[in-house]
Amino acid sequence: MNKYIYRIIERSCYYMHMRKGQQTRSAILEQALAVASRTGLAGLTIGSLAERSGLSKSGLFAHFGSKEGLQLAVIQGVRDLYSRLVFQPAMQQQPGLPRLRAIMQNWLEWTAGANLPGGCIMTAAAHEFDDNPGAVRELVSQSLRELRKTLVRSVRLAVDAGQLRADTDAEQLAFEICSLYFGAQLDARLFADPRAGERALLAFENLLERHGGGAPAQASGRTLPAHASAAH
Amino acid sequence: MNKYIYRIIERSCYYMHMRKGQQTRSAILEQALAVASRTGLAGLTIGSLAERSGLSKSGLFAHFGSKEGLQLAVIQGVRDLYSRLVFQPAMQQQPGLPRLRAIMQNWLEWTAGANLPGGCIMTAAAHEFDDNPGAVRELVSQSLRELRKTLVRSVRLAVDAGQLRADTDAEQLAFEICSLYFGAQLDARLFADPRAGERALLAFENLLERHGGGAPAQASGRTLPAHASAAH
Repeated sequence: MNKYIYRIIERSCYYMHMRKGQQTRSAILEQALAVASRTGLAGLTIGSLAERSGLSKSGLFAHFGSKEGLQLAVIQGVRDLYSRLVFQPAMQQQPGLPRLRAIMQNWLEWTAGANLPGGCIMTAAAHEFDDNPGAVRELVSQSLRELRKTLVRSVRLAVDAGQLRADTDAEQLAFEICSLYFGAQLDARLFADPRAGERALLAFENLLERHGGGAPAQASGRTLPAHASAAH
Repeated sequence: MNKYIYRIIERSCYYMHMRKGQQTRSAILEQALAVASRTGLAGLTIGSLAERSGLSKSGLFAHFGSKEGLQLAVIQGVRDLYSRLVFQPAMQQQPGLPRLRAIMQNWLEWTAGANLPGGCIMTAAAHEFDDNPGAVRELVSQSLRELRKTLVRSVRLAVDAGQLRADTDAEQLAFEICSLYFGAQLDARLFADPRAGERALLAFENLLERHGGGAPAQASGRTLPAHASAAH
């Protein structure tokens, strides 16, 4: 075999190996997310994941290096999922209120779409790690700050478009929107209240109205799908 | 010694022993609350408490019986503290809006007054135990339901007193008030945002205003004390 062809095959094998490695990692990460959703991130260790997934501890160590590496990979996985299920579809909407409404709607539905049976890992992690300095707390805090900034930007775009009043305090409104998500999540998870998502949406619309945002043009009769009404 | 006197002494020793036992239990519980506030309730075990308090594991077992017994005692301790610091002082206010405002104000301050350096154990426990059926989840859920009911009752009293509009949806408003507490708590704990408590109070007043409740008569210039503005 000449050297050139050998190199092509070598490279191709390398990429196949990489792709396989990435696929394995993705499959493991999916399991890790489902476990973390139920047990909390603090309870997720290489040992507990090995037990639940049937994978070897040494294999998991090879992928994540440490418990902290696994936890960071899970938080990054949550960020990616959230971006795909909440922000990216919302970006298809016009900037301003339509986009802000899409973010809220997608957010209240997202853990059902993401197959996270135990609810939002990020909110739970925020409570688990708030007194636990380190890389995990940093990444959780940074992720929730970025989410807040996106909400603030969306509110400002709605103000710029004249859809919300000019004196709207974007940071205050973004805080109130986030609070509604946390409230809905607690009601849905702890009280299994099927109205939790609808309560949050109603309060959200009232907030917009208070700041000059009228009823959504396309939303007459629009309700949350059944799986989302629990704001998982 | 005649039998009668012996019985009196015996009883007196028994009660002294009981009082001492209760004092010890209270002192241990105080330490357990401080630890649970930082580590979360799920992370609180007889072993970890023994390590941090310097007490013997066997002594702690004698007081609480098991990890679950300790966790239940901590939740009951949180309920008692909350009642003393939030509800009881609010009951001194007139029923209706003055009482509702006092509950919200006391609630946003309560973990500072309760010496819970890591924030509200109950909210953290709600996230830790939402997928963990058992006695602890039941007690957490029941406690938060009772709190919600008290808020609903306070809103209804304000409606009855003509301080809020007759069409006020008390359950919806109570949900929104709870959400603001959760939002403030997360901002204070994770972002160390000193404005968290003030943001929640401002949103709370706006909610009341929306339902016909004007500015509080005595509240001109009233602000949260410095330790409370972080809504610990």
